[in-house]
Amino acid sequence: MKIQIVRDVLEANDQLADSIREEGKKHGYTLINIMSSPGSGKTSLLESVIPELKKKGIRLAVIEGDITTTADAERIAVLDIPVAQINTEPFGGDCHLGAEVIMPALHQFDLANLDLIFIENVGNLVCPAEFDTGADYNFVVISTTEGEDKPLKYPLMFRVCDTAIINKTDLLPYLDIDINKLIKNITQINPKMKMIRCSAKTGENIPSLADYIIHLVS
Amino acid sequence: MKIQIVRDVLEANDQLADSIREEGKKHGYTLINIMSSPGSGKTSLLESVIPELKKKGIRLAVIEGDITTTADAERIAVLDIPVAQINTEPFGGDCHLGAEVIMPALHQFDLANLDLIFIENVGNLVCPAEFDTGADYNFVVISTTEGEDKPLKYPLMFRVCDTAIINKTDLLPYLDIDINKLIKNITQINPKMKMIRCSAKTGENIPSLADYIIHLVS
Repeated sequence: MKIQIVRDVLEANDQLADSIREEGKKHGYTLINIMSSPGSGKTSLLESVIPELKKKGIRLAVIEGDITTTADAERIAVLDIPVAQINTEPFGGDCHLGAEVIMPALHQFDLANLDLIFIENVGNLVCPAEFDTGADYNFVVISTTEGEDKPLKYPLMFRVCDTAIINKTDLLPYLDIDINKLIKNITQINPKMKMIRCSAKTGENIPSLADYIIHLVS
Repeated sequence: MKIQIVRDVLEANDQLADSIREEGKKHGYTLINIMSSPGSGKTSLLESVIPELKKKGIRLAVIEGDITTTADAERIAVLDIPVAQINTEPFGGDCHLGAEVIMPALHQFDLANLDLIFIENVGNLVCPAEFDTGADYNFVVISTTEGEDKPLKYPLMFRVCDTAIINKTDLLPYLDIDINKLIKNITQINPKMKMIRCSAKTGENIPSLADYIIHLVS
């Protein structure tokens, strides 16, 4: 009985996610869902890559997902792009964004005049991987401070994503992490994963990340 | 209808959690549940504090929770203490440990001859906070690399915990984090929170952490 209900929720979510992708094709924008643990640097990455994307003429918007607070949305709004905030707290403090909250957030934007929309999901390496948001691409951000073993311990996240951004490379000299082992573990879970190493703080490789995203948009 | 079912699950969990606490009192051990984001250093902290606790004569065991893999349990077993592994994957890759998986894990130990049992929960700053494991004390580990804003963004976790361990103090010279702001944010969510700053890597303040835990046990 309980399992049936969970299945219904997931099936309803998947259908709505497909509608979101169809709407994206109709309007001609690309939707990228960014997921990670809390504190791995999703907002900082957006802060550093968005100006690069704007310079190249990409018209973009961001959907910010958080349990509570508008702190991240406020950081992004400073970049002078449209931002929609989803707080999951009124829905029970949900640990992920489902398609049912993405759809109304999208409708806050002038969709016909956008090339790219980012979703910054709730900071959580588990549950967001289970819910299709309707995104065209799924990115996982993994910080160098989180250790080499995370792809093996949270395999679903690394299976559903097409791109892994290895962030905080500036801290590598002060950490024991073996970056080649991290890359090996990512590849073991998802041999097709694209990987980009960068530092939102120093800007290292941020132009490459921007070029990669522009390639996905066009 | 759906809400009713969620309530039933949470109520059943809370009843079982109470039974777990009663069993702890009967046998005379203390149960401490450790929660955090992935990669904030729960296992490393256990690796560094357990030898200190053993030196002081504390008889202890660890319940390791993970979605999949026995990697953390293997690291702890090296310390020559009893370890029970819970993998949530057979239960649908659960994002938290509920009382229903803690109870059978406890029964793998010789409970009458233990002073202290740690639960290392699934790495997730959201869902584990919603499920009472039956622990006597709840610890949250927050790494200095995760930023000052996490208590405000994940308030339930900081509300249900009595102790916050601020880990990776060794990285402070290389980070922009304002540690006083982090402490202020923790206090804003939970004015009664005990806080201990330490580094599992360098051992800074690990003896104080051990003393604090021994105080809770006795």
